[in-house]
Amino acid sequence: MTAAAKPLSELAQHVGGRIIGDGGIVIRKVAPIEEAGPGEITFLANPRYASFLASSKASAVIVGPGVVGESPPQYGTGYLEASNPYVAFAKILQLFNPPARYEPKISGHAVIDPTADLAVDVTAFPYVFVDKGVHVGSRTVLHPGVFLGEEVQIGQDCVLHPNVVVYDRCRIGNRVILHAGVVIGSDGFGYAGEGDQRFKIPQVGIVEVEDDVEIGANTTVDRATLGRTVIRRGCKIDNLVQIAHNVVVGENSVIAAQAGIAGSTHIGKGVMLGGRVGIINHLTIADGAKIGPGSGILRSVPPGAIRSSGLDAAPHREWLKVITLLPQLPKLWSTVRHLEKKVHALVHNSDKQR
Amino acid sequence: MTAAAKPLSELAQHVGGRIIGDGGIVIRKVAPIEEAGPGEITFLANPRYASFLASSKASAVIVGPGVVGESPPQYGTGYLEASNPYVAFAKILQLFNPPARYEPKISGHAVIDPTADLAVDVTAFPYVFVDKGVHVGSRTVLHPGVFLGEEVQIGQDCVLHPNVVVYDRCRIGNRVILHAGVVIGSDGFGYAGEGDQRFKIPQVGIVEVEDDVEIGANTTVDRATLGRTVIRRGCKIDNLVQIAHNVVVGENSVIAAQAGIAGSTHIGKGVMLGGRVGIINHLTIADGAKIGPGSGILRSVPPGAIRSSGLDAAPHREWLKVITLLPQLPKLWSTVRHLEKKVHALVHNSDKQR
Amino acid sequence: MTAAAKPLSELAQHVGGRIIGDGGIVIRKVAPIEEAGPGEITFLANPRYASFLASSKASAVIVGPGVVGESPPQYGTGYLEASNPYVAFAKILQLFNPPARYEPKISGHAVIDPTADLAVDVTAFPYVFVDKGVHVGSRTVLHPGVFLGEEVQIGQDCVLHPNVVVYDRCRIGNRVILHAGVVIGSDGFGYAGEGDQRFKIPQVGIVEVEDDVEIGANTTVDRATLGRTVIRRGCKIDNLVQIAHNVVVGENSVIAAQAGIAGSTHIGKGVMLGGRVGIINHLTIADGAKIGPGSGILRSVPPGAIRSSGLDAAPHREWLKVITLLPQLPKLWSTVRHLEKKVHALVHNSDKQR
Repeated sequence: MTAAAKPLSELAQHVGGRIIGDGGIVIRKVAPIEEAGPGEITFLANPRYASFLASSKASAVIVGPGVVGESPPQYGTGYLEASNPYVAFAKILQLFNPPARYEPKISGHAVIDPTADLAVDVTAFPYVFVDKGVHVGSRTVLHPGVFLGEEVQIGQDCVLHPNVVVYDRCRIGNRVILHAGVVIGSDGFGYAGEGDQRFKIPQVGIVEVEDDVEIGANTTVDRATLGRTVIRRGCKIDNLVQIAHNVVVGENSVIAAQAGIAGSTHIGKGVMLGGRVGIINHLTIADGAKIGPGSGILRSVPPGAIRSSGLDAAPHREWLKVITLLPQLPKLWSTVRHLEKKVHALVHNSDKQR
Repeated sequence: MTAAAKPLSELAQHVGGRIIGDGGIVIRKVAPIEEAGPGEITFLANPRYASFLASSKASAVIVGPGVVGESPPQYGTGYLEASNPYVAFAKILQLFNPPARYEPKISGHAVIDPTADLAVDVTAFPYVFVDKGVHVGSRTVLHPGVFLGEEVQIGQDCVLHPNVVVYDRCRIGNRVILHAGVVIGSDGFGYAGEGDQRFKIPQVGIVEVEDDVEIGANTTVDRATLGRTVIRRGCKIDNLVQIAHNVVVGENSVIAAQAGIAGSTHIGKGVMLGGRVGIINHLTIADGAKIGPGSGILRSVPPGAIRSSGLDAAPHREWLKVITLLPQLPKLWSTVRHLEKKVHALVHNSDKQR
Repeated sequence: MTAAAKPLSELAQHVGGRIIGDGGIVIRKVAPIEEAGPGEITFLANPRYASFLASSKASAVIVGPGVVGESPPQYGTGYLEASNPYVAFAKILQLFNPPARYEPKISGHAVIDPTADLAVDVTAFPYVFVDKGVHVGSRTVLHPGVFLGEEVQIGQDCVLHPNVVVYDRCRIGNRVILHAGVVIGSDGFGYAGEGDQRFKIPQVGIVEVEDDVEIGANTTVDRATLGRTVIRRGCKIDNLVQIAHNVVVGENSVIAAQAGIAGSTHIGKGVMLGGRVGIINHLTIADGAKIGPGSGILRSVPPGAIRSSGLDAAPHREWLKVITLLPQLPKLWSTVRHLEKKVHALVHNSDKQR
């Protein structure tokens, strides 16, 4: 899966970067800065770590503009200066590690309904189950144990890792990556209560995942009650995330691990949710909002807002006192307000006396 | 899977509701209020949204008592007035969307141990694995990739979605729905420590899931160390929930997504846990308690109590100050108490001087 | 799977304990103290519950040193006194419940690549998929639906429960238990952003799980971007935990359910993380630290520190006031500081006046 070695000059051209030093150095692979040796290119994540440069044994280092001077590096290597060194790193890593290619082949150990329509160059591994009326686009790879329910639609160039489950009628776009154990289209959590009893509200909507989405391992996305749960183009969702019924996640939003979004909440474009963020139902998180890790969201968030309510651990014994006192915060406030008045009166009296 | 069109009068009879307008209107399906058109019935979730009624193109709307007047609707449609409109909505949605029916058939691609006892009308899809001594009741559907360990018992009319795993000896009641990726009966988290070493405490109990339970995608329920972890009749559990060993969840309780209940905690009847609620071990959450989303529970909760500790996100920079000051809450209290005394003394002095 | 009955004396010898009473009593199994009857041994978890001893119908009870006196129990049973009664309980439970043994056999319904190297006594159940160049050690059991990607290495005496997925090149040590739905080696969550667009950073590292690790159901461990994500020897990890790319978890650490560790964070040896603990990226949690359930960790933690930030639920209406006031904590502090100064001045004046 690893690509051939390339001269540094070719890498620079590939990412639109500039060489400081010897462009002819041959690079075989990418390695972390602490481990990189001859023939390897590495990446300075943070100018603060520039001190690592001197001790690195890497043949080349990707750096941001102005991090190193114009003179060729003393220790006989090259720099690749890029306007966005992180993107340059990603592109070079992609170059050396192209996605795995699979033989386009339907395994004899897969069960494909005769009414399913799989493009000729689809790969279906053993133990894949494809139900009636499914459509799968070109070059899509279905790993072992993947389940596609009735009338599911999967686009081109998708990778569905082992044991991914897509319930009936859900639609997945192009170039979508679903990691192992992802569940798309399970029933939303909806019951109508009458006394003790609960009637299941049939969840008859679907999930729609647009192009260029990636969803992490064991994440769950519920189908809509009516209509659609939507993950728009370019979203990146981490592991063990819960997306409830009728949620809409806007384009290019990023959701870190173990976050959860309750029913009918709308997430805008380019929103970033930290790990373990929890958002209640029927809210709007507007475009470009950023929510810090561990935060709870009980009210809608305006565009571009940066919000947090994640706590930071304190020494345990002291914290026990804090959690005992926290519920008394309203009382503390009123005590302080009361004191303020008294002190004000005292100051007033004292002034008069003088 | 969609049922035939029905006159509004038939729907009213089905849910025990009353028609205002034309009972002969033919309804084909249920749709959300913003989208519903001719031939469709919709649902007014909240009287506050009554303004939507005028603009809706739906042929009929399910409403609560007294929401609309007695006169037939002006725009040529009908109302279905029901005492509990949400339940009426659920029942009508069920009517138009009956559960999928599957051919009673054991796939030739399933592996069923000869000692397993499957009712004649069970459906087992490809890649189902059923071990020794398993019993599966009538009309139960085992979707692809379902695993039933030795001596597992599954009742009638259950649906086990793809890749559900039920470890050995666990028991599932009737009309239970387990969504994709659910794990029932994995080992509880129990070790006995001696110095650095940890001895695994064999988890030799089971999980018992009673009738009419529904469990969401990728939720995990651990088997008891000794005895049973129990999910009682009528419980509804959402996605990615963790139920630890020896937990008991009482009848008709509802647990939202990503909640977690630690070992040996007992949840009463009709309890509601919001999303991401975390409860430590060996507690009792008594009947009818309601816990708000994102709450931590460190002490038992009495019957009917409504509790919360979920936070709401604030502007990030301000919040950073808050989390720095929070551990100093005890100091703040003692400062205020100290001030109170001083002010009291000052007031006393000042009174004497007058 | 249950072992033969044994005299109490044999159990005492097995755990290095001491008998008070009749060592000849024959024990058939282990039971919880409330349920144990004749022929059963039980366990007094906490000396506080010593009152249970009198009413217990168990034939024998495992107790800590000095919990009962020297005289044989009146009700005709025996005590097994052990220095660490919990470890003794674990060992006796292991004795009566040895791990399941499986016939060493590769199912004809498993797909094993011809280049894979499986020890002769491996068990592979139906629907196991083993890719090119995989190595599996002696006596390891691969339950139905297990997926091993290219060049995966699995040690001896491992148990991979149903539907476990190990992505390509990851390495698992000896005596490792992976519960159902565990995903090892899914891509880390890494993207380089340029404007709206996000470039996937190929995750070309691996996951290494060392000997004697147990990982709970549906837990996910991401592969490193470069290098390795490491779970060291003896770690015990519960259900639905997220371990991000390049995390290192030190020897014998214990991580409870639904905890999450963000990228590149290092966890030391013997660390204990409570349930639902969330740790941000690039931190160090040093050896022996203990973090309480529900805590957020935003800064590194020194060796042996005990930290918490988990909250405890309060009455809902009162809590709503608390979360409104919390963001005003900095203002409250400054109000109090201001008051302090005024009061100080008043006290000063008042002293002068006297």
